[in-house]
Amino acid sequence: MINSNLPIGVFDSGLGGLTAVKELKKVLPNESIVYFGDTGRVPYGTRSKSTIIRYASQDANFLLEKGVKAIVAACGTVSSSAKEELKKLPVPYIDVITATALAAVNATQNKKIGVIGTGATVKSGSFSKAINAIDSEIEVTATACPLFVSLVENGFIEEDNEVTLLVAKKYLKDIIEADVDTLILGCTHFPIIAPVIRKVMGEKVKLIDSGKETARYVKEILSAEALLNNSESTAIYNYFVSDDTENFKNIAEIFLQGDIDGEVERIDIGKYKRNIGDEN
Amino acid sequence: MINSNLPIGVFDSGLGGLTAVKELKKVLPNESIVYFGDTGRVPYGTRSKSTIIRYASQDANFLLEKGVKAIVAACGTVSSSAKEELKKLPVPYIDVITATALAAVNATQNKKIGVIGTGATVKSGSFSKAINAIDSEIEVTATACPLFVSLVENGFIEEDNEVTLLVAKKYLKDIIEADVDTLILGCTHFPIIAPVIRKVMGEKVKLIDSGKETARYVKEILSAEALLNNSESTAIYNYFVSDDTENFKNIAEIFLQGDIDGEVERIDIGKYKRNIGDEN
Repeated sequence: MINSNLPIGVFDSGLGGLTAVKELKKVLPNESIVYFGDTGRVPYGTRSKSTIIRYASQDANFLLEKGVKAIVAACGTVSSSAKEELKKLPVPYIDVITATALAAVNATQNKKIGVIGTGATVKSGSFSKAINAIDSEIEVTATACPLFVSLVENGFIEEDNEVTLLVAKKYLKDIIEADVDTLILGCTHFPIIAPVIRKVMGEKVKLIDSGKETARYVKEILSAEALLNNSESTAIYNYFVSDDTENFKNIAEIFLQGDIDGEVERIDIGKYKRNIGDEN
Repeated sequence: MINSNLPIGVFDSGLGGLTAVKELKKVLPNESIVYFGDTGRVPYGTRSKSTIIRYASQDANFLLEKGVKAIVAACGTVSSSAKEELKKLPVPYIDVITATALAAVNATQNKKIGVIGTGATVKSGSFSKAINAIDSEIEVTATACPLFVSLVENGFIEEDNEVTLLVAKKYLKDIIEADVDTLILGCTHFPIIAPVIRKVMGEKVKLIDSGKETARYVKEILSAEALLNNSESTAIYNYFVSDDTENFKNIAEIFLQGDIDGEVERIDIGKYKRNIGDEN
């Protein structure tokens, strides 16, 4: 039996997952969170499936050692590539695919949905499969936007940033031509440049933020599993990274869109187990 | 005593170092090469100094295990951040700083040199220090161009690529204003977009390719240390990476500007020692 007063574990390849933490704090203000961002090995989205699975397993094993009641992969790449491995976790595992696909299906009226994510996410076809499992008639157009991650991390994020606008026009061409009315931002970095994406896609297209949808879904799951925190204690936030904590504050505040509200510590992620459930 | 018939070990954070391998093969056609590209953890240039030192030490320890007679860091970031640690290696260690700085000093006429590299390289001030150690009157202007690495890796490399041109104009503004007549390409990725950089800098500015200068310097060092291969055997090239070998061919051929001419194997770099000389 899992203790419902334990924190929720959240991880991402880097700090993009903090956009999901921001949403989790809104919908579950009473829940403590342990966040791990693999800043020493980011980005995952350009790596092979086997490497992503190995890294994600180490990340989840770290969170398990910290004692969490559920694990959230706040990362489109991990959610798409490591699902089978992470389903073996001994606590509820929530990824960004299910809730996001459902929200997109509910939002579309012309049954045409676009998906943007990293190379690994698009290659996996994870969002398309989840959407078509709900409604097989929906036409999905998916495009990898690998440079968006670097653009966000290097601060090319203003609404009128010429470089980001030019890259977005190039990447989103096929999706615009496919006449979608709904677009999934399938990478937790992308909400940061949502204003640029909106400018290119037009006001009528509904943008679905995977972090936001996942936060709502985490609440549903915890409620269904009787794992919502029912103590009076104040929520505590702890952040862990695999590179120096030195630059964490500046970058984290972009994603959290607010101040850091907890301790930040560096850990050596390379030391954690490379598979889930080795101890069984 | 080191056996002169052993291969030269070359490593880089990823595959950019292959631009130096291409040059090594030209100036030392008789030498076998073992290359390691840390594709599972690339890029290094955005990480902290302590992480770069740890990763570079593991890379060098892997090459030592392979039995090499010298180790070349074909990477501006490693050369800039891990010099002190790598100087402890039991074989000659050659980085991209010394020879490149010397070539730039010989090239400049107005005593104004520009340096472009990753964030870590520019922060370290390594090229400026090496240049001013040779001639203290030279004015050095250094600018970090972190997005260049992602642009190259995502194929934004054509001479007239609008995105890369726009980014180059933005990044190179200060260097143009500083009126340099010589520009060091202080990252082994950058020669790939030299035509774009040349377009922005103008024809009169001399571009110094750190890979090319380093290859020449390796020949000098091996000669001085009586380590040139004097056997009749044909040179053999072996490539190792830390991510899947699946995508290696396509990307490697961009950097080598030719066909792959050896075996490619994946290794688990996380298992190698995190310091140099622990066995002593």
